[in-house]
Amino acid sequence: MNKYYLEKADINTPKLYETEVSSDTVVDIVPDETAFFGVKIANARKNAEVFAPGDTFILDFGQHCVGTLSFRMRHDDRYLDAPVKVKLRFGETAYEIARDFTSYHGGLCASWLQEDILSIDFPEIVTLPRRYCFRYLEVTVISSPRPVRLTDFAVRCLTSADYSKLTPLPEGTDPVLAEIDRVAAKTLADCMQTAYEDGPKRDRRLWTGDLRLQALTDCYLFKNDRLARRCLYLFAACEEDGKYLPGCLYQKPAVFFDDGMGITDYAMLWCSALCDYCEYTGDTDTVRDLYPVAQRQMNLACSLIDENGVLGFLDGWFSFIDWAPAIERRIPCEGVVLYTMEKMAALAAMLGDDTHAKAWSDKLTDTRKKAYERFFDADRNAFYNADIDTPQYSVQSQAWMILGGVIDGTAGVSVLRDCLTSPASLKPVTPYMHHYVVEAMVKLGMMEEAMSYIKSYWGSMIENGADTFWEAYDPKNPDLSPYSDPIMNSFCHAWSCSPSYFIRKYFI
Amino acid sequence: MNKYYLEKADINTPKLYETEVSSDTVVDIVPDETAFFGVKIANARKNAEVFAPGDTFILDFGQHCVGTLSFRMRHDDRYLDAPVKVKLRFGETAYEIARDFTSYHGGLCASWLQEDILSIDFPEIVTLPRRYCFRYLEVTVISSPRPVRLTDFAVRCLTSADYSKLTPLPEGTDPVLAEIDRVAAKTLADCMQTAYEDGPKRDRRLWTGDLRLQALTDCYLFKNDRLARRCLYLFAACEEDGKYLPGCLYQKPAVFFDDGMGITDYAMLWCSALCDYCEYTGDTDTVRDLYPVAQRQMNLACSLIDENGVLGFLDGWFSFIDWAPAIERRIPCEGVVLYTMEKMAALAAMLGDDTHAKAWSDKLTDTRKKAYERFFDADRNAFYNADIDTPQYSVQSQAWMILGGVIDGTAGVSVLRDCLTSPASLKPVTPYMHHYVVEAMVKLGMMEEAMSYIKSYWGSMIENGADTFWEAYDPKNPDLSPYSDPIMNSFCHAWSCSPSYFIRKYFI
Repeated sequence: MNKYYLEKADINTPKLYETEVSSDTVVDIVPDETAFFGVKIANARKNAEVFAPGDTFILDFGQHCVGTLSFRMRHDDRYLDAPVKVKLRFGETAYEIARDFTSYHGGLCASWLQEDILSIDFPEIVTLPRRYCFRYLEVTVISSPRPVRLTDFAVRCLTSADYSKLTPLPEGTDPVLAEIDRVAAKTLADCMQTAYEDGPKRDRRLWTGDLRLQALTDCYLFKNDRLARRCLYLFAACEEDGKYLPGCLYQKPAVFFDDGMGITDYAMLWCSALCDYCEYTGDTDTVRDLYPVAQRQMNLACSLIDENGVLGFLDGWFSFIDWAPAIERRIPCEGVVLYTMEKMAALAAMLGDDTHAKAWSDKLTDTRKKAYERFFDADRNAFYNADIDTPQYSVQSQAWMILGGVIDGTAGVSVLRDCLTSPASLKPVTPYMHHYVVEAMVKLGMMEEAMSYIKSYWGSMIENGADTFWEAYDPKNPDLSPYSDPIMNSFCHAWSCSPSYFIRKYFI
Repeated sequence: MNKYYLEKADINTPKLYETEVSSDTVVDIVPDETAFFGVKIANARKNAEVFAPGDTFILDFGQHCVGTLSFRMRHDDRYLDAPVKVKLRFGETAYEIARDFTSYHGGLCASWLQEDILSIDFPEIVTLPRRYCFRYLEVTVISSPRPVRLTDFAVRCLTSADYSKLTPLPEGTDPVLAEIDRVAAKTLADCMQTAYEDGPKRDRRLWTGDLRLQALTDCYLFKNDRLARRCLYLFAACEEDGKYLPGCLYQKPAVFFDDGMGITDYAMLWCSALCDYCEYTGDTDTVRDLYPVAQRQMNLACSLIDENGVLGFLDGWFSFIDWAPAIERRIPCEGVVLYTMEKMAALAAMLGDDTHAKAWSDKLTDTRKKAYERFFDADRNAFYNADIDTPQYSVQSQAWMILGGVIDGTAGVSVLRDCLTSPASLKPVTPYMHHYVVEAMVKLGMMEEAMSYIKSYWGSMIENGADTFWEAYDPKNPDLSPYSDPIMNSFCHAWSCSPSYFIRKYFI
């Protein structure tokens, strides 16, 4: 790993702000057929203080929290002359608490489900060593020699977001947009730790694709340039010869990444994030420091576009785009490359690198033309890959071809509208991909539709109970999960925070 | 509580010495009908390093350990991209590990059984916050996203015993006695923490009865006067008007004792411990400091002896003596009072308190005479309580009447021998009570029998696998437990350490 970049990442580690959120409110979680996940909270009341073995209660902290939990354990009338065992289950949603974790049937490791059993040796203030991510906490006294007092439940919430830097929305802002902005800001803040994490419950990791949307949105919210800088440097430190940047990395115990996790579109979006960073901060020292990495990433992508304008892939996992099932990724991924190439050509020009500015501009013009010829199907009024991969009509392909500049103007509007309204097309399922649909609309000047789209998609998530925006959301399908079981889903996911970017840039 | 005494206790808190014990040896625990607990360890071998979910192994640390566990968790070939959950079960004996803890059917709280489940968020050196007490550690990987490396298992063992102060036994010491002395010293050392704990697995508490034997034995082993001083002060701080001292106390989070835990014989043995402390340390400053408490305790006991020489009891739990089932405690408890009265009369004389020296001597002479008349049954050649409580012929009664000076010489020898050999008599089941049988023998000059008794009783515990001496032991009954299930028994119990006292004082 590149030590210079690692050191730069290290010295840009941001401060974490702490706030305490306490709760002595307990609730019941009861079935409700009209609720999105089939349950609702009810009977909010002040908690009891004394509990016997077998007793259980669900605390509601009233908001999404990311941090360490503490509580006070005391004896009641007689000293606790043996350890006390307490089981804790944490849920971002009431649904997770309603589910028995042993019924989990998903693909990712069950250890992500937030459950721990504590053995407490003597009366004390108990502070758990792990960080949890939750609004609801189910506490069960498993064993105790005598009645036990459990009180003063509090979370030391952690974030590197400085709320004092958040500009209030103007008076008179549409209240739906204002609420979406509030939830989006909270989503981003809770993902802002010593890196922009994808989700503080799971994976707690820095992903390039998420980083790009987080850093972009943060320019309009908490403006933590230091954090953006750190994350850009972290990935730069992980560059390997002839490979795309890793899609994600781990910070502990030391910076680490897995081989073979290079993801074409994500590597491109790291370059886009660098271009955003330059645009919003003007910090050209950092940009010049990192520009050689972006150069190599862009050149690598360019070198993989063949003489017919078709993007090739390196061995290994190649592209993400969206969690929509069985999605074909070649067309949208090529769109991501072209989208980034345009930004990189502009950055090169700004930095005085005329050679690359020209090379990338030329390549962009040439590839856009060839891609249009190769993929645009006039009969279908869509980008449609008839003879490479499995042919597929998808919103993802149309949106990224628009963002890649392969089509624009009224033709682009027509392509996008048709695909969004067609029952036959594959639709996005992640707020991440929905972001790029909105971005495509904005690029095409479809401002009213972009705003409606945000209000409809993110707004309905709030109506369905979101305290923070979710990793995956299909308003018609509560069972949607990239991991086969929605309790594994992250319900505070950074890539869902971008409505604040659109709202604050375009809609106020 | 008395603040002056608490402060004195506090400033006498001893240093804890740390030593590290590591293990990479795994064993199987297999059935063995010839073994005391029906199992033995087998197939000792070097541990593997890489484990998958569901894998389990049993580490043998080769000795009894009291301390905090740490180990190293790393990924194997790929990073662990989810938390790892590991279950740990600790056993002082292989038998505890062989048993399924969910089959526990005893009376004390199951939370004493040493089992914890850890969630480990990223590769690191894991150090558990709790103190455990064990030789065997069963590790089970409950869930992990990928193979996990678990290595470097080590215990940071803690004790306030300074082994450098332990005098080696002379060359040529009977090897059986030498081995008993080694195990006894290890037992005491592992119970020596910031107080003389009764058992480091359970109850981890300071009991007056245990303290007396620990402090006495320690005078011949590690000579930690500071620790003895602290413990004496701790109880003095807990004295309440007109009550016996509490039988036990807790140190954390602050010194604490339950009401109603005054135990007559235990309160007397605190006074005996103060007399021992004076004899062995010569520290009369401390003794004068604490003497008023001992005065009040002795006067209280004296005031409860009626005109017929029969000891009365305060309301509440009154006497311990031994864990033998359905034991009648009045006669042995009176013996404890007389035993202590003799020591207290001598202490009063030494301190120049002639009034009490005379009063207690007179009371002692009078009560011994009346107790003999009241309780000695010449036909049975035994102390036998025909018409108070349930009549019972017990070794406990004979031994304590001898120690109380109610009978002595050849008459005493005859009484004790008869009772020990009678099939009809109730026998001691705790090493604690066995200590006082040996002490009675020594008092009667039965030195050969005393030594044989130690070799037979404590020696057979070693033959049956004891690394440290146990809380309760009947060579014929592995199911013996004061709590209905032997996995709850403490297998390193301080009151079992006293063979070193006899061996080093009389048998080398």
